[in-house]
Amino acid sequence: MLLCARSIKTQKKKIGALPFHQLIKSFASESKIGFNYDAAFHGEIQKRKETSTYRVLSNINHVINNQGPKAYTNDHEKVIDVWCSNDYLGMRTNQEIADAIHAFVDRYGVSSTGSRNIAGHNQVFVDLENSLAQLHQKQACLVFNSGYVANETTLATLAQRLPGCVYFSDELNHASMIHGIRNSRAEKVIYKHNDIKDLEEKLNRYPKSSPKVIAFESIYSMNGDIAPIESICKLAKKYGALTYLDEVHAVGMYGEQGAGVAAALNISDQVDIITGSLAKSYSATGGYAAGSSSFVDFIRSFCPGFIYTSSLPPHDVAAALTSVEYLKASETERALQKSAVRKLKDMLTDSGIPFLSNQSHIVPIMVGHPEFGRLISRDLIKDYNIYLHHINYPTVAKGTERLRVTPTPLHNDEATLKHFVNALKELWKKYDLRGIDHWRANGFSVNEPCHFPLVA
Amino acid sequence: MLLCARSIKTQKKKIGALPFHQLIKSFASESKIGFNYDAAFHGEIQKRKETSTYRVLSNINHVINNQGPKAYTNDHEKVIDVWCSNDYLGMRTNQEIADAIHAFVDRYGVSSTGSRNIAGHNQVFVDLENSLAQLHQKQACLVFNSGYVANETTLATLAQRLPGCVYFSDELNHASMIHGIRNSRAEKVIYKHNDIKDLEEKLNRYPKSSPKVIAFESIYSMNGDIAPIESICKLAKKYGALTYLDEVHAVGMYGEQGAGVAAALNISDQVDIITGSLAKSYSATGGYAAGSSSFVDFIRSFCPGFIYTSSLPPHDVAAALTSVEYLKASETERALQKSAVRKLKDMLTDSGIPFLSNQSHIVPIMVGHPEFGRLISRDLIKDYNIYLHHINYPTVAKGTERLRVTPTPLHNDEATLKHFVNALKELWKKYDLRGIDHWRANGFSVNEPCHFPLVA
Repeated sequence: MLLCARSIKTQKKKIGALPFHQLIKSFASESKIGFNYDAAFHGEIQKRKETSTYRVLSNINHVINNQGPKAYTNDHEKVIDVWCSNDYLGMRTNQEIADAIHAFVDRYGVSSTGSRNIAGHNQVFVDLENSLAQLHQKQACLVFNSGYVANETTLATLAQRLPGCVYFSDELNHASMIHGIRNSRAEKVIYKHNDIKDLEEKLNRYPKSSPKVIAFESIYSMNGDIAPIESICKLAKKYGALTYLDEVHAVGMYGEQGAGVAAALNISDQVDIITGSLAKSYSATGGYAAGSSSFVDFIRSFCPGFIYTSSLPPHDVAAALTSVEYLKASETERALQKSAVRKLKDMLTDSGIPFLSNQSHIVPIMVGHPEFGRLISRDLIKDYNIYLHHINYPTVAKGTERLRVTPTPLHNDEATLKHFVNALKELWKKYDLRGIDHWRANGFSVNEPCHFPLVA
Repeated sequence: MLLCARSIKTQKKKIGALPFHQLIKSFASESKIGFNYDAAFHGEIQKRKETSTYRVLSNINHVINNQGPKAYTNDHEKVIDVWCSNDYLGMRTNQEIADAIHAFVDRYGVSSTGSRNIAGHNQVFVDLENSLAQLHQKQACLVFNSGYVANETTLATLAQRLPGCVYFSDELNHASMIHGIRNSRAEKVIYKHNDIKDLEEKLNRYPKSSPKVIAFESIYSMNGDIAPIESICKLAKKYGALTYLDEVHAVGMYGEQGAGVAAALNISDQVDIITGSLAKSYSATGGYAAGSSSFVDFIRSFCPGFIYTSSLPPHDVAAALTSVEYLKASETERALQKSAVRKLKDMLTDSGIPFLSNQSHIVPIMVGHPEFGRLISRDLIKDYNIYLHHINYPTVAKGTERLRVTPTPLHNDEATLKHFVNALKELWKKYDLRGIDHWRANGFSVNEPCHFPLVA
């Protein structure tokens, strides 16, 4: 209730900020005959509010000159520690990337001037695509405006041009993959999360000669667990399927040169298509798909999400290229990140705070209720100057609501760590939240040690 | 044939640039049993090549310090005039935008650090959305990573939550709208381009109480013609439909403050939803949808293309905001653009080069054959140092292949104009292409004077 009231207040304030708003008529439909559109939109939003799944955008301003994982809020005018950033390696403040942006803006101006097919492209696009192809040991690569678009338009297009193609999709795949597969209108078979046996049973139902695509992720965003990539590739070979691996939460961080989990396992060549994000560990913007040259030429020629869109400004592509090249060479950020993750996981276990076991940098702290997730986020920022957004349904299953924590190289400081874990301890007590034993008793693997076996 | 050979050469060269490529196995599928994926991709590409619809990306590097609409190619190392840029107002070199990017990179770093829901957002997002809402006289606005995504995810989501919703879609709508409507899986009724009578007949077949969305554009990209917005809004009112107007080729350029065609006609309040691009006249990146606050809250809460994607870096949002504010105040660019367009249209008519009549800045020069379009583009860059990409099927209908010319404020120089029109004259002669009379005889309205009646 409190939160609903707060949301409405924020809403009002936002509209109120527009001095002319009183003058503006609401939706024209209100004075129209027929269907009441505004009421329908309002009804959908109300449903979200009633189920504690309504989202409120937070004003979080990361600045350069703050030490550690700091940002400031506009409303509260206070400095906070951020614990849920996808700037996984703290590259946001990397000077080489900033220099690249400055140089490209000064040399090429601020815009790409159109789509790559019609307006052409700056040489830096070619350089970035070559760099990423080399990273993943693929023949070619294509850059899209986001990782979401890379997955959505590639998967939507792929099956449309492979007659009778069937998708085999891990049940925890990201929304961008779900929507791409859905939009292809191809047959879709969902297999149990990371379950090789279930996948094989399902592959086996289809003729070997028919086209199939197994779509999965290397590290799953909300659990932080890692797919059995090698086993999936073996099944793909056995049943004649193409492997489509999303490495958005792995590139930059795992394997030699930060090439991802497949590279860490030395099996990049067994994966047909690798997609990645330029906006997480690389701290730029955009996404990509890498594969054989005929595959890349195919998606370049047919994906509407590539063809019919203005390309990224050259300075953002230069930022991505600089970051990818920097993280090919530097091990420092990867080592510091893993150190912070290890420290945090150990301290959480010592404090009895439950988190899902995994061998990655993602620490899913289990809350188990949408309203408590919301209250913890609220208290953290209010009473502890900590920003950590809760994750509710539909992003995760009901009953598994969580705090998704991502320690970065900037989170190694003992005082920062202690302040955070102490805050959680106090809130776990305040709201009488369930501990490690509860989750174990319910079949969850929690608070096992993390060895980062993938790291060289 | 010549061009196919050239494409393959480019292809080879691209792969050859990767020193390791000999070592990399081609698609794993080649050694797999079952379906041959690479052959399928290759087959699709071959079809494109055989129908002269295969696209080759051009290396076009716009630099800051060149005068006029100049860029240089990497391969040819020569300076060229660009005549097909969507940097409609030449804002690519605007110093205020560059300064904003520099300042934001130095203050906030290079990345947004995640999605807006989870990572929060920099204040500049709110400022940009308020500025755009004010521009269109709407209560609220939401920024997306591209105009393509704005249309696709908004239209895909809208009808899914309005039970029984039917889309009425202009037959020439942009691919982003077509895909959004398709992905919604709602019923779709396509009406004849800009044909009010056809639209009314089709609206009339549905009960007034059922939800309907009329999706259309203010200026159509490939024809440059303008929709009868006022008549469409009247029909919407009569039949209880929501109006969804894409102003991507109009914002920044028409109406007071550059608010678009609906604003120029003083009917912004009759349009329910207005979408726009930040990557064309505004020379930034991203797109947006503006409407009532309940509509914007609805798309913010339900559009996967907004929720599940890393947001744009703050410096790009600052670039967009600076550009939008700049073009609210400055009339110079709009006046210079119209001047260049008028000059070019007059000179083309004097030279007998056919272009579709319209009252906008888009000059569609009619070729009528995919192979000649390709040859003209090739000759222009080779013999005249002019970059102008041809437009073929499927972007335009077969038989209406064209050169889509967009004069900007930088194209006012007499020598640049003369050089361009003279090149076209010579190529029309060389390839014995059809002139104004041919197109008129076939029912096309060509080479009528342009008065820009929409400009104040």
